[in-house]
Amino acid sequence: MKQTQLFMPTLREVPADAEVKSHQLLLKAGYIRPVSAGAFAYLPLAKRVLNKVESIVREEMAAVNANEMLVPEILPAELWQRSGRYATYGQDLYKFKNRQDRDFILGPTHEETFTELIGNDIKSYKKLPLLVYQIQSKFRDEGRPRFGLLRTREFIMKDAYSFTSDYEGLDRIFNQMEAAYRRIFDRVGLDYRVIVGDAGAMGGSDSKEFSAPAAAGEDTIVYSESSDYAANLEMAQDFYERVDRSAEPKQELKKIDTPNAKTIDELSQLLNQPADELVKTIIVQGPEGELAAVVTTGDFEVNLVKVQNFLGFPEVELADEAMVKEKLGASFGSLGPIGLPDDVRLLVDERAADLVNFAAGANEDGKHYININWDRDVALTAEQVGDFRTAKEGELAVDGKGKLAFTKGIEIGHIFKLGTKYSESLGAKVLDQNGRSVDIIMGSYGIGISRLLAAVSEQKADDRGLVWPASIAPYDVHIVPINLKDDDQAALAADLDKQVQAAGYDDLIDDRKERAGVKFADADLIGLPVRITVGKKASEGIVEVNLRESGESFEMPAADVVERLGEWLQK
Amino acid sequence: MKQTQLFMPTLREVPADAEVKSHQLLLKAGYIRPVSAGAFAYLPLAKRVLNKVESIVREEMAAVNANEMLVPEILPAELWQRSGRYATYGQDLYKFKNRQDRDFILGPTHEETFTELIGNDIKSYKKLPLLVYQIQSKFRDEGRPRFGLLRTREFIMKDAYSFTSDYEGLDRIFNQMEAAYRRIFDRVGLDYRVIVGDAGAMGGSDSKEFSAPAAAGEDTIVYSESSDYAANLEMAQDFYERVDRSAEPKQELKKIDTPNAKTIDELSQLLNQPADELVKTIIVQGPEGELAAVVTTGDFEVNLVKVQNFLGFPEVELADEAMVKEKLGASFGSLGPIGLPDDVRLLVDERAADLVNFAAGANEDGKHYININWDRDVALTAEQVGDFRTAKEGELAVDGKGKLAFTKGIEIGHIFKLGTKYSESLGAKVLDQNGRSVDIIMGSYGIGISRLLAAVSEQKADDRGLVWPASIAPYDVHIVPINLKDDDQAALAADLDKQVQAAGYDDLIDDRKERAGVKFADADLIGLPVRITVGKKASEGIVEVNLRESGESFEMPAADVVERLGEWLQK
Repeated sequence: MKQTQLFMPTLREVPADAEVKSHQLLLKAGYIRPVSAGAFAYLPLAKRVLNKVESIVREEMAAVNANEMLVPEILPAELWQRSGRYATYGQDLYKFKNRQDRDFILGPTHEETFTELIGNDIKSYKKLPLLVYQIQSKFRDEGRPRFGLLRTREFIMKDAYSFTSDYEGLDRIFNQMEAAYRRIFDRVGLDYRVIVGDAGAMGGSDSKEFSAPAAAGEDTIVYSESSDYAANLEMAQDFYERVDRSAEPKQELKKIDTPNAKTIDELSQLLNQPADELVKTIIVQGPEGELAAVVTTGDFEVNLVKVQNFLGFPEVELADEAMVKEKLGASFGSLGPIGLPDDVRLLVDERAADLVNFAAGANEDGKHYININWDRDVALTAEQVGDFRTAKEGELAVDGKGKLAFTKGIEIGHIFKLGTKYSESLGAKVLDQNGRSVDIIMGSYGIGISRLLAAVSEQKADDRGLVWPASIAPYDVHIVPINLKDDDQAALAADLDKQVQAAGYDDLIDDRKERAGVKFADADLIGLPVRITVGKKASEGIVEVNLRESGESFEMPAADVVERLGEWLQK
Repeated sequence: MKQTQLFMPTLREVPADAEVKSHQLLLKAGYIRPVSAGAFAYLPLAKRVLNKVESIVREEMAAVNANEMLVPEILPAELWQRSGRYATYGQDLYKFKNRQDRDFILGPTHEETFTELIGNDIKSYKKLPLLVYQIQSKFRDEGRPRFGLLRTREFIMKDAYSFTSDYEGLDRIFNQMEAAYRRIFDRVGLDYRVIVGDAGAMGGSDSKEFSAPAAAGEDTIVYSESSDYAANLEMAQDFYERVDRSAEPKQELKKIDTPNAKTIDELSQLLNQPADELVKTIIVQGPEGELAAVVTTGDFEVNLVKVQNFLGFPEVELADEAMVKEKLGASFGSLGPIGLPDDVRLLVDERAADLVNFAAGANEDGKHYININWDRDVALTAEQVGDFRTAKEGELAVDGKGKLAFTKGIEIGHIFKLGTKYSESLGAKVLDQNGRSVDIIMGSYGIGISRLLAAVSEQKADDRGLVWPASIAPYDVHIVPINLKDDDQAALAADLDKQVQAAGYDDLIDDRKERAGVKFADADLIGLPVRITVGKKASEGIVEVNLRESGESFEMPAADVVERLGEWLQK
């Protein structure tokens, strides 16, 4: 491709409103332009990257026998009303009416659409399993779109859905999809972690999230420095082995005045005890007003997501202080496990459950108990004990291998075991082997295709510009003749252009009338893997090769270039 | 691909609401399913056809150096307000508000989007010409979506836009695009005609439409039986050579009573003169009330589009009869060219302009003049004479080669010279060679990708089902083992599957436990080009080959099949 025929408007200045590296560089290098807030045009270079990413996704989906489909983006509201999500999805759902005043939405995801399609046509377990996917624009009316392609209102997603008649089938496809996703992210050249996610709004039972570590990420990932373990902060677990301290001598329970000890730090100082030998107690509230007291050691925070999952509630929140005061007789900072009302359930983190002679609030403002011992002072059964704490950086990871580290990450993929949530609400059933009508079992599997461009840019770009892995670079080779009026340079550049294409690679040739400095700066900025500069030594058949990622640069005979391409462009 | 893993729900019954062949068969063969009125899901077989069509389009676009891009589908209303189309596009435009109450539309086409993108970044004629395109879902809120993929609310379109600094550049790209479109439609195996279109709503100066003749088409195409000439009915021209009959003796002008001759037939009978020796007169009205009387011979109808284009009005309509009666003093059926008010412009079709001693209404109810002669009785200049008639089947085509025939056609592509309509309203300017700021000159070029599936189905399908050209068939080869429990059949089918793929073709293997009759019926229905039946003679290495389009069927050694594929699958 000749650069003069390519719409590739590089900028000298970075637009002021671009906060993160990928946004800045994709704008500057002429890859994207905003059309409205959170809705971008992909210019030719970006579209070529998208096409290459999509090809890799299609190959890996074909390898697991997934069928490509394409469903409408405008969906009747009625479909989402039946699943319940029309009401619960919130303000991110684009809603509109057609000319006949019927309600429609723009699909942000398509569990309902595919459940309905498969449910209408598949009536027997004999026609299952089925695995289908599509690559398509999705819509989410983000309140605050930002960070370029990282948080947009219109984005390209690969969404896949599996339909099986049993959970073994679901598990098998889920595992195949995890493997396929690993291959896809490996092939596009991303550093990523597979983390235990929170199935959350998708309503599923199990999920794994693929996250690309990057400063611009909006999620906190907790990972082991020495193993594969990784999780979202909400789900991350540190390693803790229960200890039996029941043989230790039990001191006498005492209630003491602690008017100035409302925080763990203050209490720790007052009692001259480390925070991990004290407990903190918070009160959480379920959706129907159910209350629970959650006790952890003073050095950890309570993890509401773990508490919610343990309780099996759709949501929990911190209880209101005034209500707590009325119910328990004390404010935050003086709460504790002793003397809770009968209808306040007690949950104790395992680290706290192993303490002896520990201090806690007395449920009386300005008072704490010291020398509390479980069972003697508060009844505690094994069913009340669990992991209710938020993991901390530096703790041993739950697999016992390596310390936990925190990083920011970009969610690039997510796979969910949905079970029967959608098939049940939409009536997608098959007859099983015994002739009984059963709900189809589903999984859903997403990759943020357009977001991958941002994630790769965040991880790979340097101070000179973008750096594309060979597998998804817009072009493999950038041929840069310095002076096309020089016949030797023009002829050699044209010859290389032909040779590169004949060898099955694609190339861009900078045929602009620009100074060498401008050409080199633009070449670095757009980030093709191999640059071949055709300059004064063209008459001797010598060119300069620059490898963008490593920064290596060397002169060599033009005649030898093509046979080296395979080595420089490992895909 | 194994058929048991493919979502391909064929139906035994044709859904009752499917009126046209392509709609019926695409539903029956499991290619498409409606999700809402006019919005279809493309099931795996259809998606494979779409992908193959899109590959052909991408190859041919690359061949004319068009850059692929992708712009958002949600567009700020403001962009269309600036071009004026937000008001004029009508009810087909999907409009909605986002959560911040801002107005948006779903793009039905993207002249504005691309004009704005190019206009913002391109400031000099040196960066032109540019040719960009995208393949993307488009939206049109059709009042009455129908005929399956032929008239939908969401459809896939390839839209391209050219930007040049001069009209020579536009003409060159327009011609290249016409050639590219011809190659695309040739490759997908369509019979089509390139017709002179009416640029109409796109506001352009020149356009060509690509139309696929088919009974289900909604347009009437007029074409020559012996040449390339083709046009929309609104633009079609018959051949007419002017004759000078001024030497013929002129009879005396007479006004006669014709109380029962309101129609041409009645007048023709009364006067015993053929319709082509009489004239009819209609009154048309422009947008600001301008009136014109249009005179044609009695055997032709007045063509309002030709009149409108001649007058240069944005629209014309038939004048209201009551108004005409008040203005001219006579009702429809008694109108004529003699004695028109000064502010009623007279236009005369060339066939009528050559008549002598002809009859016409006297602008007095129940009266006609006979023996009218131009100049003597009504002044007529050359500027008032033109082609104002609608072409008729059986007339000689305007190129003098062959008779005009009418057929229904499906619009599959349309290319427009837009000129500066959009660049002017959106302020897309470049500096020209002389440093002057000039409006960029544009063209736009569309192909209805999803509609092509319907057009091919309409033209190719037979009473057994769909018939796909090899270039866009979902799979090249359908391997149909009769009984997979037979070891010879299973082994031979598996071997053929491998061989076909090794030769670079794709295949579907019917591994279902179904009767042979069901397998054959489904194979015919889905319409893959080559069927290889592996039956009882598998033990002898003999298979049966069926070619779907020609219906040819023969036995042959399985070992020779692969080397014949190239011949059977000419793409």
